[in-house]
Amino acid sequence: MKAPLEPVRWQGEWLRILDQRQLPEKWVDIEARDVPTVGEAIRTLSVRGAPAIGIAAAYGVVIGAMYPDGAEITVAAQNAIDYLRTTRPTAVNLFYALDRMQKVLDASASDSDLVDQLLTEAHSILEEDLATGVAIGKAGLALFPTEGSAAVLTHCNAGGLATSGWGTALAPIYAAKVEGRDVQVFADETRPLLQGSRLTAWELAQANIPVTVLVDGASASLLRSGKVDLVIVGADRIAANGDAANKIGTYAVALAAKQAGVPFYVAAPSSTFDLTLPSGADIPIEERADQEVLHSPIEGVKAFNPAFDVTPAELIHGWITEKGVIRPPFAPNF
Amino acid sequence: MKAPLEPVRWQGEWLRILDQRQLPEKWVDIEARDVPTVGEAIRTLSVRGAPAIGIAAAYGVVIGAMYPDGAEITVAAQNAIDYLRTTRPTAVNLFYALDRMQKVLDASASDSDLVDQLLTEAHSILEEDLATGVAIGKAGLALFPTEGSAAVLTHCNAGGLATSGWGTALAPIYAAKVEGRDVQVFADETRPLLQGSRLTAWELAQANIPVTVLVDGASASLLRSGKVDLVIVGADRIAANGDAANKIGTYAVALAAKQAGVPFYVAAPSSTFDLTLPSGADIPIEERADQEVLHSPIEGVKAFNPAFDVTPAELIHGWITEKGVIRPPFAPNF
Repeated sequence: MKAPLEPVRWQGEWLRILDQRQLPEKWVDIEARDVPTVGEAIRTLSVRGAPAIGIAAAYGVVIGAMYPDGAEITVAAQNAIDYLRTTRPTAVNLFYALDRMQKVLDASASDSDLVDQLLTEAHSILEEDLATGVAIGKAGLALFPTEGSAAVLTHCNAGGLATSGWGTALAPIYAAKVEGRDVQVFADETRPLLQGSRLTAWELAQANIPVTVLVDGASASLLRSGKVDLVIVGADRIAANGDAANKIGTYAVALAAKQAGVPFYVAAPSSTFDLTLPSGADIPIEERADQEVLHSPIEGVKAFNPAFDVTPAELIHGWITEKGVIRPPFAPNF
Repeated sequence: MKAPLEPVRWQGEWLRILDQRQLPEKWVDIEARDVPTVGEAIRTLSVRGAPAIGIAAAYGVVIGAMYPDGAEITVAAQNAIDYLRTTRPTAVNLFYALDRMQKVLDASASDSDLVDQLLTEAHSILEEDLATGVAIGKAGLALFPTEGSAAVLTHCNAGGLATSGWGTALAPIYAAKVEGRDVQVFADETRPLLQGSRLTAWELAQANIPVTVLVDGASASLLRSGKVDLVIVGADRIAANGDAANKIGTYAVALAAKQAGVPFYVAAPSSTFDLTLPSGADIPIEERADQEVLHSPIEGVKAFNPAFDVTPAELIHGWITEKGVIRPPFAPNF
């Protein structure tokens, strides 16, 4: 079964990255043939979404080793890992993928096989993510109303674009579509970067799934109206107590869902769980540039622009993973 | 004491309306010399904010009577009232102002005095609103921390721009500034039309009041962070049980404020109370065009774009009016 999208794909000698900053107006592919191009794509959100970032970074290490530019291959690979680690602070999958590449580098006996070994590991990370998407889709679909139509609210884009192709929060929706279920999606536009109206709406429309976009402030009254059966969002990092960091605005949706009695689920691969962090208070929150918020700068006006917020575990009805749905009280016993 | 702003002012023979759609980039005044120009300014949000809409509409009736274009003056005035009534469905001040103009029209004995009588009434509506702003400012300032600095979160623009000049939600902030208090404001950007980042930030910066803009989705985590002392928002209509309709997104802020233990106040002139409506469920909610939400239209993608939501009375710590602060349980005994 082919994934609905291929946002990051290895092309034999280079990495094709769909430039998500240009969607939905234009479909532009970045041809990444050096490490800084991969790093910039991650840093500037051309590739975004925790699993997709991890995949891109893994192939970035391959590129580093493949084109060492006069350095020793192991040094070039190590430099790539060290640099790529600095590109986004919150997405744990970035570190997870780079740790796997580091292990391959550390274990490699000969320079001559290193590129192949790194490439095999990067391919594994991609393939595992595809399988994860299918499994999350199946587990999540079981949470839908058992018959009739289903309406799902989501925030940001934890879709095919954010992963190898199936998505996390959107995987159950694609699974519903594959099974011929009547499903529709409400997508928060997700300011400041509009991943909802630009990316989630775009990829669902490509798949002929009905989608309605709303401003982030409208989700509370939408939830109160009774038109939504369940909320599914992704996560960038989940602490050991189940607290989940996701795109800024997610916490407000969780509060409104609770008030409205609508179940709120977090869909994420198990690699998103960071059991070294006791709670959400320990998750580092990236603060991004004022300019993302202030279109029209006004003398003396500042911005507060955290990229993520933390939804406490007590607002989460279940964590949908590739290994099944974890129910509260949260216990990450994979 | 001069108001910090004059967004709607009579110029002897025409109405000057500050075109708020062009802020903060450009300061452009609309010269309204006929009723459709006033109506379009209201309908397209060049003038917005319930009190400012009421004031503009009142002068619009004057313009109708002043330039009857061959019709009888009373007919021209009546036509203006009937037309202006259709320009915005939710703002009760529009109907309040037009009802006052209707009474003048109905009571007028002679055509020759009608224009003067209508003008006097429109001036009264403006002057009363200026006095209201001063009184709301005084009442609201009493809710600030008694010493030290104060940080206020607001949503949308219930500022000078939304009124005759002092604002409602921002009136206590201007009052604090006048008294030399150390006050700072966090302003939700307020999608889809960005009244927060465009208007609230602009008018506070004009008054040298420190202002920090955030996306609507960030207010929940800001409130949880403990950096906000109180929330003050405006209202477009308040039902007899205290439920308040205000710009979309307000309800989500109220939920987050409750969760964070931060007091949430609604500031509005008593004309905003519509005691004919038992509860917020009876307040008509304007749905606006998809295009406001969807910058980049995608084939097959729709929008859900309500202009307002309703914050239930139980989330409101007090209603700040020109007659003082009403405390819960809400009883509108003016």
